[in-house]
Amino acid sequence: MTDSANSVRAARTPLNPPVRLLMGPGPSNPDPRVLAAMGANPVGHLDPYFVQLMDETMDALRQVYRTRNHHTLPISGTGSAGLEAIMLNLLEPGDSAVVCVNGYFGQRLAELARRSGADVRTIEAAPGEVVDPDALDRMLKERPAKVVAFVHAETTTGAMQPVQDVVAVARRCDALVVMDCVTSLGGVQIEVDEWGIDAAGSCTQKCIGAPPGMGPITVGPRAMAAVRGRKSKPGTWYLDLALLFQYWGETGATRKRAFHHTAPVANIYGVHEALRLILDEGLEVRWARHEAAHLALVLGLDGLGLSLFTPAANRCPTINVVRVPDGVDEARVRSRLLDMGVEMGGGLGALAGKVWRVGVMGTNARVPTVEHFVGALDEALRAEARVHSGTTSSARDTTSR
Amino acid sequence: MTDSANSVRAARTPLNPPVRLLMGPGPSNPDPRVLAAMGANPVGHLDPYFVQLMDETMDALRQVYRTRNHHTLPISGTGSAGLEAIMLNLLEPGDSAVVCVNGYFGQRLAELARRSGADVRTIEAAPGEVVDPDALDRMLKERPAKVVAFVHAETTTGAMQPVQDVVAVARRCDALVVMDCVTSLGGVQIEVDEWGIDAAGSCTQKCIGAPPGMGPITVGPRAMAAVRGRKSKPGTWYLDLALLFQYWGETGATRKRAFHHTAPVANIYGVHEALRLILDEGLEVRWARHEAAHLALVLGLDGLGLSLFTPAANRCPTINVVRVPDGVDEARVRSRLLDMGVEMGGGLGALAGKVWRVGVMGTNARVPTVEHFVGALDEALRAEARVHSGTTSSARDTTSR
Repeated sequence: MTDSANSVRAARTPLNPPVRLLMGPGPSNPDPRVLAAMGANPVGHLDPYFVQLMDETMDALRQVYRTRNHHTLPISGTGSAGLEAIMLNLLEPGDSAVVCVNGYFGQRLAELARRSGADVRTIEAAPGEVVDPDALDRMLKERPAKVVAFVHAETTTGAMQPVQDVVAVARRCDALVVMDCVTSLGGVQIEVDEWGIDAAGSCTQKCIGAPPGMGPITVGPRAMAAVRGRKSKPGTWYLDLALLFQYWGETGATRKRAFHHTAPVANIYGVHEALRLILDEGLEVRWARHEAAHLALVLGLDGLGLSLFTPAANRCPTINVVRVPDGVDEARVRSRLLDMGVEMGGGLGALAGKVWRVGVMGTNARVPTVEHFVGALDEALRAEARVHSGTTSSARDTTSR
Repeated sequence: MTDSANSVRAARTPLNPPVRLLMGPGPSNPDPRVLAAMGANPVGHLDPYFVQLMDETMDALRQVYRTRNHHTLPISGTGSAGLEAIMLNLLEPGDSAVVCVNGYFGQRLAELARRSGADVRTIEAAPGEVVDPDALDRMLKERPAKVVAFVHAETTTGAMQPVQDVVAVARRCDALVVMDCVTSLGGVQIEVDEWGIDAAGSCTQKCIGAPPGMGPITVGPRAMAAVRGRKSKPGTWYLDLALLFQYWGETGATRKRAFHHTAPVANIYGVHEALRLILDEGLEVRWARHEAAHLALVLGLDGLGLSLFTPAANRCPTINVVRVPDGVDEARVRSRLLDMGVEMGGGLGALAGKVWRVGVMGTNARVPTVEHFVGALDEALRAEARVHSGTTSSARDTTSR
């Protein structure tokens, strides 16, 4: 064994995780009712009760995505698996795709597309900026693409891409439009049908309010026609949409279900409950709650002398990217916060070490929760300032940030 | 929306799943401590507490697999995702594989291999039988293969493949040996290192005793050398082993972790607790418990006049495939049992309608639990016999089965 005897002993003690307020880029804290649902009586994946639950989950997900797409389900993997499912089913060798890249998750979306064997071009924007639809238009006029993909809310930079211009440009060359809405679904307005999105993928652990583990996707009729018209099978059996919907239920008169893989029953219990809570709250109310919490956060950060990295015009309320002040050891501040039971995220990719990332997501997207967070961050920054100034706590009020 | 207003309303009521004794081919009922662990305080996927938990989970999984393979982890998907990860990483276009097929899951293993673009041959055995190592030897002598794969316990027929002869034959042509032990790991003896298995994949919802949702795999040094020597990237980013171990931790001095995907924290809590319970019980004790419960089941079924489909020499104790008596409506018997709160499985593939499948797995693999099951099945069969004979309940003791 490569691990020490100590670690083996540790694995033999029951779990006792610390209490955390999860204010990073996700996971957020699920509502306690979601965690309770995951521990409800287990049933089999072919049980009539569970089959009904699958239908209900698909239906609730359609409402959250604002779509009539039958082909809407949670993939049995995390958000990345859902997006990979979309890319590997829509694209095959010989196809062409254009992916909008304005951060780490745009790069990843392009990489997911490349694994299909398709030819993938990228159109880039600087961190914090969004992709220019005119530049996309020029690229597509040079050579059209079967798929145009973009990230709605780029989790590394906090930038939210305006959707409708991208869709209009993509549709001019008849491209299928794929949207990564991992960080936005359930927290800001998404209108899959009205906006003309052909396929979208998200996660469960951010604004949906369940633990990580499933990848909710929706696939529209134009995209499903492309899936059915493939020359070759997708390079994945596990994420093969045609097979998945034989189990989850196809459209039309025949509702017979064929076994595919054993569905993750507990995760689907959790997603079902999280979606129920969303619909119970109401989508518009929920979006407004995220916006209000975001504004409270910006105000609070301003009070600490901190500013957002993302230009105001581009900001997604659910993910707030904050500049680290000069001379501050950003990792030590995060570590201090974690010691107080509060998690925030560091920068990823090009922004590593330069920013913090604060999620305002799901049940944590409430003004009092944000105030709790700002207070804890204030205290962590004071402690950090004391290290730098070498002063004792009596000097704390004179430190400037 | 394709679903009715009724179904929408139903999705808005909280979950209240029925209580089930899960005696089908999986999922089995998890120990209540495993379900409780899944609801424990959520932490982030990069939290130091969670990183320690990942190390512990890998270490515990190594002990359950009886291996020193560093590359041992639960894949963030169900058992099929774990096996797909193995196939898509070990094989690439131009490679050759031979898959042993004696049932539905052997066919699936071959299909997973084909999705890599490799050339895949199959060697077949009749349902209930196991694959003949001499026939495999002849096939490999005609043309060697990079990978030889087999199913340890074929879940559709109950047959358990003797491992060591297959490994000896495969090693003669230097093939990598891949084992599907979805239905056996944690319930019967598995010795990955001693048997010379290069890669193995299982699930969490059968003998491991957690809900479905993760695919525990182990990949040995010869197989990892093949992964590192690939000419092309795997056709999957989500299941790319090289990237996964950048997050879970590679061997050697550098233990720096790079983000890959957001790990399913609650599922890993559950798997950690399930593995802890296995190690606490002791593997040998657990295997003996499954064997004892299996023997009690066979005895009990015999008392009901029922016999096993699988020849005695090939039987895997964890999955018991029972012949449906002539004239019995097998689906109605299962439905009656389910009404009593007891699930058993029907036949799958070639055996659909001809057999029932009874799992003796995880915490359910206990003699009293099996007796409970046999009693319920007895009652369901009596009710079915009454339908056929048209008699009332006073005639029940005269019905023959």
